[in-house]
Amino acid sequence: MTSNKQIRLASRPSGWVTADNFVLTEETVPKVGQGQLLVRNLYMSVDPYMRGRMDDARSYMPPFQIGEVLQAEVVGEVIASRNDDYAEGDIVDGMLGWENYSLSDGNGLRKVARDSAPLSYHLGILGTPGMTAYIGLHTIGKAQPGETVFVSAASGAVGSIVGQLAKLHGCTVTGCAGNDDKVNLLKSKFAYDAAFNYRNSKSLPASIKEVCPDGIDVDFENVGGEIFEAALWNMRNGGRIVMCGMIANYNDEELQPGPRGMMTVIARRLTIQGFIVTDHPDVGMEYVRNAAQWLDEGNLQYSETIAEGIENAPTAFIDMLKGKNIGKQIVRLAHI
Amino acid sequence: MTSNKQIRLASRPSGWVTADNFVLTEETVPKVGQGQLLVRNLYMSVDPYMRGRMDDARSYMPPFQIGEVLQAEVVGEVIASRNDDYAEGDIVDGMLGWENYSLSDGNGLRKVARDSAPLSYHLGILGTPGMTAYIGLHTIGKAQPGETVFVSAASGAVGSIVGQLAKLHGCTVTGCAGNDDKVNLLKSKFAYDAAFNYRNSKSLPASIKEVCPDGIDVDFENVGGEIFEAALWNMRNGGRIVMCGMIANYNDEELQPGPRGMMTVIARRLTIQGFIVTDHPDVGMEYVRNAAQWLDEGNLQYSETIAEGIENAPTAFIDMLKGKNIGKQIVRLAHI
Repeated sequence: MTSNKQIRLASRPSGWVTADNFVLTEETVPKVGQGQLLVRNLYMSVDPYMRGRMDDARSYMPPFQIGEVLQAEVVGEVIASRNDDYAEGDIVDGMLGWENYSLSDGNGLRKVARDSAPLSYHLGILGTPGMTAYIGLHTIGKAQPGETVFVSAASGAVGSIVGQLAKLHGCTVTGCAGNDDKVNLLKSKFAYDAAFNYRNSKSLPASIKEVCPDGIDVDFENVGGEIFEAALWNMRNGGRIVMCGMIANYNDEELQPGPRGMMTVIARRLTIQGFIVTDHPDVGMEYVRNAAQWLDEGNLQYSETIAEGIENAPTAFIDMLKGKNIGKQIVRLAHI
Repeated sequence: MTSNKQIRLASRPSGWVTADNFVLTEETVPKVGQGQLLVRNLYMSVDPYMRGRMDDARSYMPPFQIGEVLQAEVVGEVIASRNDDYAEGDIVDGMLGWENYSLSDGNGLRKVARDSAPLSYHLGILGTPGMTAYIGLHTIGKAQPGETVFVSAASGAVGSIVGQLAKLHGCTVTGCAGNDDKVNLLKSKFAYDAAFNYRNSKSLPASIKEVCPDGIDVDFENVGGEIFEAALWNMRNGGRIVMCGMIANYNDEELQPGPRGMMTVIARRLTIQGFIVTDHPDVGMEYVRNAAQWLDEGNLQYSETIAEGIENAPTAFIDMLKGKNIGKQIVRLAHI
């Protein structure tokens, strides 16, 4: 067995995260104690929320600690087990490390079938981003057939699924993304009825009005900042703003102001609601069952951007924060 | 019969509304046509939302028009009727004018009993402000016994009722107001467990934390601006922010930014929801029935600030926007 390469937090970012905030270390692969199992990590997810964990601030997940191996959702293969619930050869999914091999006591892991879907899909369309899209659209956004849904970061891991779910549900689906290739993909692959490149927009409120002439019923907010404000101004009476993420603000050093025109929330009877996917495990599992079937039937399309090797995980993470990925950003740690 | 004094919109305010924006005119009392009734107006309500109607902007009620008589909720006595549904001597409540006599076709009026409660109460604790407090606290805020409620503009028409309703419901009730007399009244009369004077606060988030050490479950937001931001920062997981009013912003010439730290909405799974009282007529009537009983039983306290005469309505309105009133600001137009 080779050594275990790991990515640790070297320093906390001030403003934009940089490669300097990470350090690659190498140690021997750990020994499996009683009740433990050893996972050879195959795929690792990098996600926007991780930026928040790099700061030393209270949030819904504890901060990463300097000098420690960063955490990520990982799909891996059990290669040794002294835990009765797991056997060598099992494929598992759970919160493990930015590393080649992770030791676990089994808590919080779930077994994943070696079925027709690629294993990396369990970090995306069959995993947390997919559940996030489904819970946000239905449980929080209460989207109804015939309504207009607007999605920011529409070609991202979550947005590329939200659009398709909304379309399957009978909604009109609109969104924005950060370059023309992404916008084309939204329309050609991800079921969007209309979309625009926000970097080319002279007026975000006007660009949204163009794709949503009758206004927005459900704003699926992944970005925050000016796009959030522009969506707010285009909401219809009784509209719901699903607060899923605010990637525009994650690298800010200071708290940024909220959208201008909050009086709109009263005048148009809006609901702005935040949510965390792990609060809704039953709905999440309901989604995974549905999604597996929709994928089999060809009713869901999926894109991944895959980086190779643990050494490249920091770059993959930073590129994702800058919007360089299309669909889910994954890091492949080993070939099965 | 004397003449009919009326207050008309002379000009739209830019920034703070001033006496110059109003003009007093006088004309003969109108004749009653077929199907109409003539109301001698007794009490008139001035309310924060009227400031929005003075601007030429889309909102949930149409703008006042320059040169026309302003509208207000009024309680008056029918003094002539050619409408089968109303007889001379009936007391009615509805949207009529800033004037001594209003002509109506009966649409939107409701009859009010000449019972034990003073007639002006139908513009306050037995009317729209009371319904607003009840709908906001229960339908929108979903306050539960044992939860902590925080109310801004707590001694105002709505806030002075919210606190008592929350207390009757078994909540811990906290709030802020703009001077020490109001703060004392909150605690001695309006059932608040704790309150502070926001004008003396060195740090609004810290002042709120002092009265809500375990955080806020339901923020009943009447003010907006910095108080809204400070409340947001003190919300507990799963908290609800009831957007009832944003009086801090009504006289702004430009749209002001929303609260900093909107990421809190996601991290703590908050819901921010706006509402308009007229969307919930059934709940409103349920409240009025309850409130009449609570008043009879001595379980609800009520304060009014009463200005005398239609000539003083503009000043009463401006003073109310500046927070000079305690409880509901009313203008008495005639003595019955």
